[in-house]
This record gives sequence, structure tokens and C-alpha cells, in this order.
Amino acid sequence: MAQPRSRNRKGTRGPVGAKRQEILDVATDFFGRQGYEDTKWADVAAAVGVGPTALYHYFESKQHCLYVIIDNAITTFCSRLEMITAAHDDYFEGLVAVLNDGFDLTEREVLRNRVTVAEQGLVSVHRSSPREEEAREAARARTRDLEYAWGMFLSRGMAQGSLPEGDPKLLTHAILGLYNSVWHWYRPGGTWKLDDIRAFFVGKQLAILGLDPALAERPAVTS
Amino acid sequence: MAQPRSRNRKGTRGPVGAKRQEILDVATDFFGRQGYEDTKWADVAAAVGVGPTALYHYFESKQHCLYVIIDNAITTFCSRLEMITAAHDDYFEGLVAVLNDGFDLTEREVLRNRVTVAEQGLVSVHRSSPREEEAREAARARTRDLEYAWGMFLSRGMAQGSLPEGDPKLLTHAILGLYNSVWHWYRPGGTWKLDDIRAFFVGKQLAILGLDPALAERPAVTS
Repeated sequence: MAQPRSRNRKGTRGPVGAKRQEILDVATDFFGRQGYEDTKWADVAAAVGVGPTALYHYFESKQHCLYVIIDNAITTFCSRLEMITAAHDDYFEGLVAVLNDGFDLTEREVLRNRVTVAEQGLVSVHRSSPREEEAREAARARTRDLEYAWGMFLSRGMAQGSLPEGDPKLLTHAILGLYNSVWHWYRPGGTWKLDDIRAFFVGKQLAILGLDPALAERPAVTS
Repeated sequence: MAQPRSRNRKGTRGPVGAKRQEILDVATDFFGRQGYEDTKWADVAAAVGVGPTALYHYFESKQHCLYVIIDNAITTFCSRLEMITAAHDDYFEGLVAVLNDGFDLTEREVLRNRVTVAEQGLVSVHRSSPREEEAREAARARTRDLEYAWGMFLSRGMAQGSLPEGDPKLLTHAILGLYNSVWHWYRPGGTWKLDDIRAFFVGKQLAILGLDPALAERPAVTS
């Protein structure tokens, strides 16, 4: 517990952060491809090439690592929502851009989304280990942050007349719930292309907000 | 494995079926209230008042029981979709009735939905025990049945001009995905009343189908 933990910031931290990120990447691939339950933590360690003691320095357990993966996924959603909406003066353009951005994903990010939605039940389960519990609570808090940020963004749109009136909290649940549902069934390399999924689901998210789904494809102009 | 297993049919099978249903009910309450992971299988047995040997007659394990709960939940959705749509000559009235019906739930059914969506990741995980694996595959097959039935129902609506054209499979994913998302956050006795949730989400499901959400409240007339 007393050891310093280096929060990874996209690989800018040198070898320690890089190794941590490598473990997260490999674990995401394992969890996403063969399932969290079916993944042996020792296999992740072997694939990264670290021993149990070194691995423990980064993550106490498979579950600890899972919480950090989920936390990072949601943190990315939060920061992209903030960044993209700030970059658009026009509310509607910002909305369409951020909805489209949710489907602009690498294969690993798709797997990360898949892990996040498949294992979100585990984020509700208290852990007796303080390190695990801390990571779990962080992931939970991040979900609330994202819901709050979306609620504020939608409220702003309503206040300025860019969105039809509605309950921002329920709309947030619906928008994020529909988005999350995709990763339960979508598989990279499967029947559907991600671009087709994007066009369809962004249209449906707009429909939920009471807007014309046909406007989903309107090109986003960065201001 | 060789022992006869009595498939429960809504308690019409006498004492054996009644006890099995009681275990399912109690397990649903435990899994739904305190979480599947946090529930001890022995606590379910104690609450029902059966010993380990008797319990094993009905379910091999906690996971076996979970699969049957999920299977039953989805079977109910399938049969209600079929029953309600068959009872309405008017396509749109049948659609609105079946969407509303999805929120016409007892507290235990809400908990069952919650368990079903929280633990659906486990339905993808192969089991080495044949009894567990059989129950898991049955639950998986049921999900496909439900998606197929919805796809056919939506295709029929498009063919007869009651629904705007669209991809029935993607629309099914969207309609069911939005519905399932509710049970990730909705809690009985919480801030939201189920009737408010129903009105909001049925409206959004209609919006996804390209229909006027305001028609969600149109009273369903049984033919």
C-alpha cells in the first residue's frame, strides 16, 4: 500500500508507465477476446513477460487490473466529451461530433468497451482488499462523472434551445445505455462494419434526443 | 446427470416444481439485491430450508441456477411478445402494448431483469460441467430466439407499411439494448417510479423505430 503508484498518463512516464500500460493493453486483449472469467492472470503476466512479484507492483490482482481498464475507458469518454464539445461553437455540431467519436475506435478500444460493459456488474461488488476497493471506487466515481458531464451538456443544449426539453438524467441514461449495448454484441471482424454501426446508432441517439436522425452524417466542422 | 430433471412450468408440477420455483425466487432476490458475486449459494439453500444434497437435485451450483433464472426471464419475454402481438389485429397497437408490457413488472421481475443484464457476461463463459453447460447453452439459445422473434415482428411491420424501413436486426439490437440498459441503474423504491420509466423509455423505443414517441401512451385495445 505504501509503495508509490505511478498513474499512467498515456505513456509519458517512461519505463514504469510504459510497462503498466503494456499490462493494461495485454489484459484488455485477453479479457476482450476470451472473456474476463476465462482469462488466467498468470497468462497475462507471461504474455507481458513479468514475474508475479513485478506484476504485483502494478496490479494486486486480475480484478484490480479490470477496474483500472474500466476506469481508463470511462476517463477517455469524459475527456473526449469535454474536448470535442469545447472545440465546437455550434452546439449541434459538437453533439454530432461527440456521438460519432464514440465509434471512432481502434480494435483494442472496442475490446475495452466490451470488457467495460460485460463486467460492469463487478464494479458494484465491494472488495475486501483496500487496493482493489480503491480502484473499484475510482471506476464507480468515473461512471458518475461521465453521467454528470453528459447531463450538464444536455441541460445546456436545452437551456439554449438547441435540444427539445426533456429530463437530462433519463436522456443521459438512454444515450449511454444505447451506446453501451452495442459492445455486448458487436465483434471486430464480424458481420457489421463499425462505420455502419456508427451511422445507425448515432442516428438513433439523435432520435432519442428528439432530433432528426438524418442529421447524424452532417460533417463536423471544428471551429 | 442421469437423474430426471423436472422443467418447471409455472408451478403446475406439484411439490417438485414448487420447490424448484421457490429456490429460483429466493436466488433471484439474493442475486438481485446483494449481487450475484456477493451471494453465497449456501445462504440461498438456508433461506429455502433445503440441505446441500436436496439442493443439488435441483441445481448443481449457483451458476447453474443463474443460467436458469436468465433463461426463464428471456423465455417470458419471448412468450409475452408472441401472446401480446397475436392478441392485436392492429400492428401499432400490438407494438405499443408489448413495449409497455416490458415495464409491467413485479419487484421480483425487476430484480430478475437486473440479474439478467448484470450477469449476461457469464452466459458467454464455457462451463466444464455438462449440467451447467447445458443450462448455459439453453440461456444463450433463448437470447437468440428473442432476437429472432423481434426481428420477425419488426420485418412484418415494415412489410405491411406499419413501420418505416430499416434493418430489423440492428433495430432489434437497439430496442432490446435500450430496454436492457434500464436494469443496470433502475432500483425498485429509488428516485424513479416504474411508470415514469415506462412512459419515457417506450417513447424512446418508438423514436428508435422512427415513430412518434407521443403515441406511446395510446391505450392498447385488445381485439
